[in-house]
Amino acid sequence: MNVEKVLIDGAWGESTGRETFQAVNPQTGQTLPGEYPVSPWNEIERAVRAASAAAWRVRGWAGERFAAFLDAFAARLEKRADELIAMAHAETALAVEPRLKSVELPRTVNQLRQAAAAARDGSWVQATIDTKANIRSMYAPIGPVVVFGPNNFPFAFNGAAGGDFAAAIAAGNPVIAKGHTSHPGTSRLLAEEAHQASLETDLPSGFVQLIYRTSHSDGERLVAHPLIGATGYTGSRQAGLRLKEAADRAGKPIYLELSSINPVFILPGALEERLQDVAQEFATSCLMGTGQFCTNPGLVVLIGNETGEKFVEAVRQRFAQAPAGTLLGAGVQRNLVQSVRALVAAGARSVIGGNPQSGPAIRCENTLLRVDGETLLAHAEALQTEAFGNESLFVVAKDEQQLLQIVGTLEGNLTGCIYSHRGGADDALYERVAPLLRARVGRLLNDKMPTGVAVSPAMNHGGPFPATGHPGFTAVGIPASLRRFAMLECYDNVRPHRLPPALRDANPTGQMWRFVDGTWTQN
Amino acid sequence: MNVEKVLIDGAWGESTGRETFQAVNPQTGQTLPGEYPVSPWNEIERAVRAASAAAWRVRGWAGERFAAFLDAFAARLEKRADELIAMAHAETALAVEPRLKSVELPRTVNQLRQAAAAARDGSWVQATIDTKANIRSMYAPIGPVVVFGPNNFPFAFNGAAGGDFAAAIAAGNPVIAKGHTSHPGTSRLLAEEAHQASLETDLPSGFVQLIYRTSHSDGERLVAHPLIGATGYTGSRQAGLRLKEAADRAGKPIYLELSSINPVFILPGALEERLQDVAQEFATSCLMGTGQFCTNPGLVVLIGNETGEKFVEAVRQRFAQAPAGTLLGAGVQRNLVQSVRALVAAGARSVIGGNPQSGPAIRCENTLLRVDGETLLAHAEALQTEAFGNESLFVVAKDEQQLLQIVGTLEGNLTGCIYSHRGGADDALYERVAPLLRARVGRLLNDKMPTGVAVSPAMNHGGPFPATGHPGFTAVGIPASLRRFAMLECYDNVRPHRLPPALRDANPTGQMWRFVDGTWTQN
Repeated sequence: MNVEKVLIDGAWGESTGRETFQAVNPQTGQTLPGEYPVSPWNEIERAVRAASAAAWRVRGWAGERFAAFLDAFAARLEKRADELIAMAHAETALAVEPRLKSVELPRTVNQLRQAAAAARDGSWVQATIDTKANIRSMYAPIGPVVVFGPNNFPFAFNGAAGGDFAAAIAAGNPVIAKGHTSHPGTSRLLAEEAHQASLETDLPSGFVQLIYRTSHSDGERLVAHPLIGATGYTGSRQAGLRLKEAADRAGKPIYLELSSINPVFILPGALEERLQDVAQEFATSCLMGTGQFCTNPGLVVLIGNETGEKFVEAVRQRFAQAPAGTLLGAGVQRNLVQSVRALVAAGARSVIGGNPQSGPAIRCENTLLRVDGETLLAHAEALQTEAFGNESLFVVAKDEQQLLQIVGTLEGNLTGCIYSHRGGADDALYERVAPLLRARVGRLLNDKMPTGVAVSPAMNHGGPFPATGHPGFTAVGIPASLRRFAMLECYDNVRPHRLPPALRDANPTGQMWRFVDGTWTQN
Repeated sequence: MNVEKVLIDGAWGESTGRETFQAVNPQTGQTLPGEYPVSPWNEIERAVRAASAAAWRVRGWAGERFAAFLDAFAARLEKRADELIAMAHAETALAVEPRLKSVELPRTVNQLRQAAAAARDGSWVQATIDTKANIRSMYAPIGPVVVFGPNNFPFAFNGAAGGDFAAAIAAGNPVIAKGHTSHPGTSRLLAEEAHQASLETDLPSGFVQLIYRTSHSDGERLVAHPLIGATGYTGSRQAGLRLKEAADRAGKPIYLELSSINPVFILPGALEERLQDVAQEFATSCLMGTGQFCTNPGLVVLIGNETGEKFVEAVRQRFAQAPAGTLLGAGVQRNLVQSVRALVAAGARSVIGGNPQSGPAIRCENTLLRVDGETLLAHAEALQTEAFGNESLFVVAKDEQQLLQIVGTLEGNLTGCIYSHRGGADDALYERVAPLLRARVGRLLNDKMPTGVAVSPAMNHGGPFPATGHPGFTAVGIPASLRRFAMLECYDNVRPHRLPPALRDANPTGQMWRFVDGTWTQN
């Protein structure tokens, strides 16, 4: 069998690595045809050097150049949609409809186009001009960016096409994509289109590159490499923290999106008012995509009265009726089962499910666990173990006081939701829960499950550690996500003709928002 | 002798620590009267808990409350100016005039007032509103901030009054100030006024606290404490990197301002045109404050022709004529002498100076070293050792090519300067030097020495590692410096009356700049 090629320095070439791996179709359990290389260090370093050379080539280029690439790439993805979707479906078992075809691919293409618009507009650099002191500053490209994509979004967070990729490139940086090993074929197709788009739009070789896999230690060397500007990583906490340690030691920014259990607080009045609706919303959110979302509602807190018990039962019924979805792979299944066992060992008990299902599809039963508030408080850390997949843990608090104590024990999360009575019956309790939850999450929701992550300028897909590595940055939302891949550049007394266009007295486009002498202006 | 008290949880109280230390007057070499405690862990943790309680108390407060405190504090500092200046002069030997009285104290007061204005205005939170999706986000306080002040700015960077203090508080966070051990009396006076101002303006106890000294390991525990939001540190690279490692491991943001040698490139045309002027500017910048600035020009690169040699000689004469200033302390003197020796061991040779001067004042000779370009390239790391004080290393490149190679070996720095011919004779070389230097510094200057750091919204007092820990943040410049001490908070579908005022449909002040549906507006 021929080993697939890596994309380095503008060409698809044979890897110098000897180790290879293959993806598995989670629906059939069968190994998929392509054989993919594990890149050795010399190959990785070649990519780093090419990326660095590309970064120098494009220094000072107008955002239009990057926008043209992103738009061309988006158009190419639409043209190759069928093949991309078939490949992603084979590698991840995510549904063709609506997920891959009508949701994730359009979202990915839309993200690329939003990033293109931001690059073209240029306002993201937040040009700040003090005309009196003649000091001027702006955000500028940080240097080559490594993007580690996760397993659960083969398109929208792919290292070679997703949000981090789009943001890094819109900010003017070359990208080295590390494809997730569960969907190398999808990553390859995406990178093929990115490569073609880069040729079409005259970007330098080395601007977009793809490797499929590295050893752990080479991954750590990569994020710490002196020629690397920054890293975006979405994935498991364990691997992410190892990369973080290496990058931190080298003083290289690394933006992590790690585990999150996304607590949902359902206040008593909401259940009195609309128990079945909330149960339906929850079950849909928790089982969609077989629960494999960073914002999956993995922890639900409610008060253990009669209505609370009815809610548990309503969810149990829905979990029983819904077919168990296919998981992304055997590793996900193994982790899910282990996490469920760890939760049970810490005091949770099963309401329904908890076991793997027999093949060929890689699945687990829809799983609902429950635990009382006292046990949660006694084993708060263990009971916040993320169980990635179609699982949730219900915490049944004995009263409001205990519910408040529970909020106080939560780790940093991407999201936190509060459902409350529409007429205001829960308002007093809401006022006490919300501030505690607010400090622990990046996005606070009302009366809405956390799984939808709109690509809005106001979105925050981030949050306090250990959900991410820094609570001031978001991985989704344009233009904010671009600023992760930027450094602040100041020009002090620099002669006018030597300034970048964004910092000259005249607005370079007549449209760019700039902060001039304390005022945001397009003039 | 009575041991001075620490300010914890709203009261000046006796430290529970047994160890104490005293400051030394660098001008006389004599120990100063006050005896100051080293705080043990239980005391530090009490401060952390009080700060955390204060953070909860002030959650959601309008910026006006913090502004009132900052303004009251600024006014109190002006009233106590004479005592503050006398104490700072005794502890640091920095000149009363113009430095302490006409420059640093006014700057400190001005910073506090600028921070107050930013807090009052509120635009710094960058409220971002997507009305269609009903998603809204803003920067919000990150939690208690620890500020480690440096030795060289007893007022303007003091943990209890300086830039980080002002930024953290304007952003709504309590501060635990760690006074620098070389000027504990100054820190005490500042904290006394901060405490009084906090009483005057009804801030909770624990909002402003002061400890003088901790063990290294307790410092590391402090920055990693779960109740701490973030840390600001200005000081030595070695101590800073230890704190960084501890904070990074705990996922706590830490903003560091470490060493920087601030390379200055003097292109041949500038010397042909105005050799004596540049020599004078350089000598003033390098010897001012006995060279004890983070932005001191510690490395000067020029081409080794006849004019270049004349320039070296012109600087040598000025260094010979200027009296050697007093250093901040014996430790600074020791480090300076050691660094000069390390530079000489790496191939530099002395043009003038290099030795400590005999007492009682703690001084070193004004020191100018030189090295040829080839040696610099061969020992680039060792020859970038920071020699904090009245010293600079001249690198004499043999030609333009070598000068360009030298730029390419530079570490991250706060600033980089290029002097060039006013008529354009150096423009071709400038075009090649500038991009290389740009990528390695936070602030690029033309025809100007780096030592002035204006408090301008466009200032960047930051730069790539190891000058700082993240190239996207600035320690000076308001409002940008506030955002270091903030987390991004998003509200998704949250009911209107539950939103913070900055995110409601109506502009809370009619003046706040907000980013609404893609447009910056005050409406």
